[in-house]
Amino acid sequence: MNLRELRFEFEALLTDYVECLDEGRLEEWPEFFSERGVYKIIGRENVEQGLPLATMFCDSRAMMKDRVTAIRKALFYSPRYLRHLTSNLKIVGQEGDAWMAQANYVVFQTLQDEGTKVFNAGKYIDKIVLEGGKYRFKEKIVVYDTVQIPGLIVIPI
Amino acid sequence: MNLRELRFEFEALLTDYVECLDEGRLEEWPEFFSERGVYKIIGRENVEQGLPLATMFCDSRAMMKDRVTAIRKALFYSPRYLRHLTSNLKIVGQEGDAWMAQANYVVFQTLQDEGTKVFNAGKYIDKIVLEGGKYRFKEKIVVYDTVQIPGLIVIPI
Amino acid sequence: MNLRELRFEFEALLTDYVECLDEGRLEEWPEFFSERGVYKIIGRENVEQGLPLATMFCDSRAMMKDRVTAIRKALFYSPRYLRHLTSNLKIVGQEGDAWMAQANYVVFQTLQDEGTKVFNAGKYIDKIVLEGGKYRFKEKIVVYDTVQIPGLIVIPI
Repeated sequence: MNLRELRFEFEALLTDYVECLDEGRLEEWPEFFSERGVYKIIGRENVEQGLPLATMFCDSRAMMKDRVTAIRKALFYSPRYLRHLTSNLKIVGQEGDAWMAQANYVVFQTLQDEGTKVFNAGKYIDKIVLEGGKYRFKEKIVVYDTVQIPGLIVIPI
Repeated sequence: MNLRELRFEFEALLTDYVECLDEGRLEEWPEFFSERGVYKIIGRENVEQGLPLATMFCDSRAMMKDRVTAIRKALFYSPRYLRHLTSNLKIVGQEGDAWMAQANYVVFQTLQDEGTKVFNAGKYIDKIVLEGGKYRFKEKIVVYDTVQIPGLIVIPI
Repeated sequence: MNLRELRFEFEALLTDYVECLDEGRLEEWPEFFSERGVYKIIGRENVEQGLPLATMFCDSRAMMKDRVTAIRKALFYSPRYLRHLTSNLKIVGQEGDAWMAQANYVVFQTLQDEGTKVFNAGKYIDKIVLEGGKYRFKEKIVVYDTVQIPGLIVIPI
């Protein structure tokens, strides 16, 4: 498969991923990862300063499922809509069986009786593997620009 | 034509469509639809609750043309610039002669003497047909997140 | 090379270009242009009224390098993060050895202790040439919707 075909596939993966989040199907979210996949949300400032402190960290699908359960239990705040846009997907290399890819994203949030605002913007840094005919994230690092994350509960981005 | 080629074509269609709106060429807008094409703008809340109430509804090119005439007559408010971005286009199936596709969109608005703000964000849910060598919308449903649509006049999105 | 392959290449060029700016690697920015390349930032209002007044204008790589030096010297204001998203890339024609292409863009800015906001939205109008196996801008015109550009220093977009 050439780079053009691969980029097509990874764009499709990203599209399914953000659709899952936009539609709030959180229970399906861990399925986008390998069994021992890593998911990390980390501030751009921390990345640039080499600080390891992450806003959210999971290193297995089981841990992600726990996270979803916790979010479902805690979600008492006002209903809202999320909408992701992604662009500029780029395949940057290979590492073992994984493809390294990155993309820019922005998430818009609409709260009841408010306009639509930027919730979070940043960059996905992904390692993608093919497992049983399906592309999955072996690692997904969300590096966000947005210093203040609104709301108390951290949700997947 | 394979899915990759088709997605390329539909992205090109979407690009022409949003360019037409960004440049305010409203008179050309109905040409993106079949003669008996359907155009609907509807709130995400209504879709999720199964309510049929649409903010805008046209079921023919003729009706869209009437709509454009009405907008041109009513447009006394301040000049503004619109800018669409779309991403995550996905072909989800086929229904008769039509391809079903969807994409996320955001429209930014710039009013005179103001910064650029999110005007509307949401999802296009389209049925696309090939008519005389040209792709057209047999149906385009704009499902918007943004609860409050600024301005009194509803314009195509 | 067909249009689909070319659009793939130009999307990759745009991705590298915005990544360079997002990461603040301004010194590398002139390398995206031909030696005698033109870079112009101009308001949409001016374009539509046929006014030549540009917010920023360079007609060689050397001039761009001077510009970068000036920005580096002047940049005393608060640190900020930029994030570009681009979409709807379209190849519109050929002119001599150059391909004409356009795309919509939005730049988000995150200032310290503030949320992420739209910094600038508009359209890239490009002439792209192949030089020594690498695609470069022979001309890049940034037509921006955003009337007020925040900050005193004009940076490349």
